[in-house]
This record gives sequence, C-alpha cells and structure tokens, in this order.
Amino acid sequence: MVPGHEVVGEVVEVGPEVSKFRAGDVVGVGVIVGCCRDCRPCKANVEQYCNKKIWSYNDVYTDGKPTQGGFASAMVVDQNLGLGGVGHMGVKVAKSMGHHVTVISSSNKKRAEAMDDLGADAYLVSSDADQMAAAADSLDYIIDTVPAKHPLEPYLALLKMDGKLVLMGVIAEPLSFVSPMVMLGRKTITGSFIGSMDETEEVLQFCVDKGLTSQIEVVKMDYVNQAFERLERNDVRYRFVVDVGGSNIEDAA
Amino acid sequence: MVPGHEVVGEVVEVGPEVSKFRAGDVVGVGVIVGCCRDCRPCKANVEQYCNKKIWSYNDVYTDGKPTQGGFASAMVVDQNLGLGGVGHMGVKVAKSMGHHVTVISSSNKKRAEAMDDLGADAYLVSSDADQMAAAADSLDYIIDTVPAKHPLEPYLALLKMDGKLVLMGVIAEPLSFVSPMVMLGRKTITGSFIGSMDETEEVLQFCVDKGLTSQIEVVKMDYVNQAFERLERNDVRYRFVVDVGGSNIEDAA
Repeated sequence: MVPGHEVVGEVVEVGPEVSKFRAGDVVGVGVIVGCCRDCRPCKANVEQYCNKKIWSYNDVYTDGKPTQGGFASAMVVDQNLGLGGVGHMGVKVAKSMGHHVTVISSSNKKRAEAMDDLGADAYLVSSDADQMAAAADSLDYIIDTVPAKHPLEPYLALLKMDGKLVLMGVIAEPLSFVSPMVMLGRKTITGSFIGSMDETEEVLQFCVDKGLTSQIEVVKMDYVNQAFERLERNDVRYRFVVDVGGSNIEDAA
Repeated sequence: MVPGHEVVGEVVEVGPEVSKFRAGDVVGVGVIVGCCRDCRPCKANVEQYCNKKIWSYNDVYTDGKPTQGGFASAMVVDQNLGLGGVGHMGVKVAKSMGHHVTVISSSNKKRAEAMDDLGADAYLVSSDADQMAAAADSLDYIIDTVPAKHPLEPYLALLKMDGKLVLMGVIAEPLSFVSPMVMLGRKTITGSFIGSMDETEEVLQFCVDKGLTSQIEVVKMDYVNQAFERLERNDVRYRFVVDVGGSNIEDAA
C-alpha cells in the first residue's frame, strides 16, 4: 500500500476526454478519486457520500488496479479532483465569513496563537469548570475536531437553543450523551468528513478572494520519521507537507 | 406534590386581563404553565426552551406558591395554555401529512395494529438483522420514542444521507454512537420534548382538519393502581386518561 492524501502535484498526462486540466497544471487531490456518478449523493454533487466512492489509496480503481496515494511518484485520478481540509483553517475561514469565533482548548497553551495568529475572538479552556459554566448557552455551532474519545455533554451545554455540534474526528470508541441534553434545547449532534468537489472549489475560491493561506512546514521524505514523532507530541503548526518530488527518492533508495 | 400533566378541564374562573378564555370553556394544559416571555426562545414563540419556564407541577408559580398538576381538583395556569403530545399520534399525523411511514418495533407483536389500525406503510422488526440490513439507507427521519437505553447505530444505519434521528425519550443513562456513523452520511442526532403554544395549536388544528383522534382508555381515580400495573406491562392502547372530575374523590376519601 502507498498511502497519502491531501496531495499537490503536477499533471504529467491526461486522457483523451479530459477537458478541465492539461499537462503542466498544478492540481490538488483529496482522499477520493472516483464515485459512481449515478446515486442520489452523486447527482446532488456531494459525491463524498456515494456508497461506491473510491479512496485515494488502499482501494481498487475502475481499471481494477490498486489506488496509490500521494506518496507515490505518480497516481491516476479522475479529472474531478478534490483536496482535503486543514484543521486550523476553520478559524481563519469562519473569521473571514464574519463569525464571532471561540477556540475551545483543554489548556491555555494555544491561547496566544489562537487569538493573535489566527484571529479568534475568544478562547475557552475546557478543563476550567467556571469558564465553561459562564459560556453555557452561548454558541450557535461547535466544530469538534477532537480526534479521541471525549464527553459530549460539556460541549452540548455551550450551545444555544437549536445549536449544532459538528463532529469532524473519526473516533473508534463510542461517544455518549444523555438524551435530555439534546431534547431540552432542540440541539443537534451531526458530523461531516470531507467536502465535495463543488464545496472544495467554493472554499478554495473563498480563500483566494480573502487571501487566506494555511500555515505549513515543508519537509523532505527523509524527515518523515521525525515528522511522525513530532506529530505525536503535537509539535507542528499546523501540517507537515512532504515534498515528494523534491526528495530524490530514487537516489535515497 | 400533586403531579399530572396533559390535562383537560373546564375553566372555572379567569383573571381580569384574560381574553382568550372564559368560564365554562374546555381547555387543555400541558407540562408548562409559565415562562419569562423575554428571552430568545420566548420571543421566538418556542417558550418550552425558556430557561425560566414553570413546570405544571413540583415547581413554584409566579405567586410563590407550588404548582399543582392535573390530578388536583383545580389548578392555576397562564392563559397561554399547552397540551402535551401523545405517542401513537405520530403515525397518524405523519400519514396525514403524506409521508411514507415505517413503524420500527422490537418484535412482530404490534404489526397488525400498526399497519391496520394506525395506517403505517411498513413495519420493521429491529431485532431482525436481515430486515434491518435490507432497510439500510432508506429513511429520511426516525422519531425515536424508546424510553430506555438503546444503541443508536442500528437506527443511524437506516437513515439516508442527511437523515435525522429525533430523540423523544428522556433517558437517564448515556446513549452512545461512533462518530463515523454521523460523519459518513452527514446524519444528525437531535431531539425534541414538547411543542410551544403555537406549535401545539397548529397540530391540534391539523388534527381537527384531518379528523385525527387519539385512542384512549378513560378510567376513574380508583383504577389508578391497576392502570399503573397495566402500564408497566405495556397493556394500554395508547393512553390512560384519568377522569378526575368524575371520580368523586371527596366521596372516596
């Protein structure tokens, strides 16, 4: 298996029916490289909910061959390309949309970067019971990117009537809540994983219009093990990008 | 404490500023008899989400006295009266709204009454894995009235993309689910408890227009213990109504 999604690369060859791109174009590829194009989600242009979607890696493409991800030297994808999201962009995008943005974190460690660098309006420490109680019934939406099991009640309590808790973290262990927490305020728990092509293009265009860029750290392939170690202690602001093309893999191998 | 909500009674006296009702009117009272009238939910006419709502019983009214429920010989309520919902009416109302209605039950016991008496279009036995698998990805909404702890995944799996699981049962034990069940289909878990005055009047008028009535069994006060025993073994179709006025309580006491 060759993993890797959220890929940026250069088109080296296009098929005879491809009209959107040509050799030399710089393109992005997300975690999905194909779909059935015929089901209700596909027809509604939210192909990420297609039951026959093809993952960018560890899946089988329409030609029967394994799909290979972004760490491969080359990959075959449909011309309807996609690019995955980047966590910290949520604050920047929400601010640019005019929202009052509160960052919720387990400690005060990220306060300065949240407020000063990303432009958040408020910062809430989830382990501080007084702060959490004072903020009850105050938020319209919470984008919950926590990637591990956590109680939902403290976050549901922060929501106003009709507020929405949007889960973004794939968590294998069950999450739990008591039913009155959603009933007595008509609150919602929902989730989302990636955007469709249309949604992705819309948000990319929005970022172009607003001049929003992501904070990344570009590394070479030979730094991957160190990058993983730093990831595990949350020591990256905010994504490592592996420069596969510039890594001289053949030389290193 | 005098409990009892979902009350029907006759107005015996009105205050000087009451314009909606007069003595002799037959009225319904729900589980809420007052609210602040000033917060966001109150101003949006969804006063059931007011943080200062006054429960029909076991609460304190604006005059500082305890509120007394529907088993009292008389009760004091605001003129903006409410009436609680009745479970089995969901099928009748949904059918009258033109929906394709599936009743989900743990066994086949209620199939005949669901299909023949209530007019459901389909009946699904939740303990039958084959039936549940065949019905995956087929429902837009599930109104979940189960009043005890139960797994949410089997019901989330029945929902289409963007489907909604609406919890109606007050359950003290936490309910659980894994996050991909809502993320990979952009599904929603939400809840509701009672309607507002406006919503209640709207649904009552709908029932009048469509000729929908609830199936009830009227009993006297001296039958209450037997009624509770029958309730515990689910032996009532679908609600007991206690005829407090006709029970000659003073005679019995």
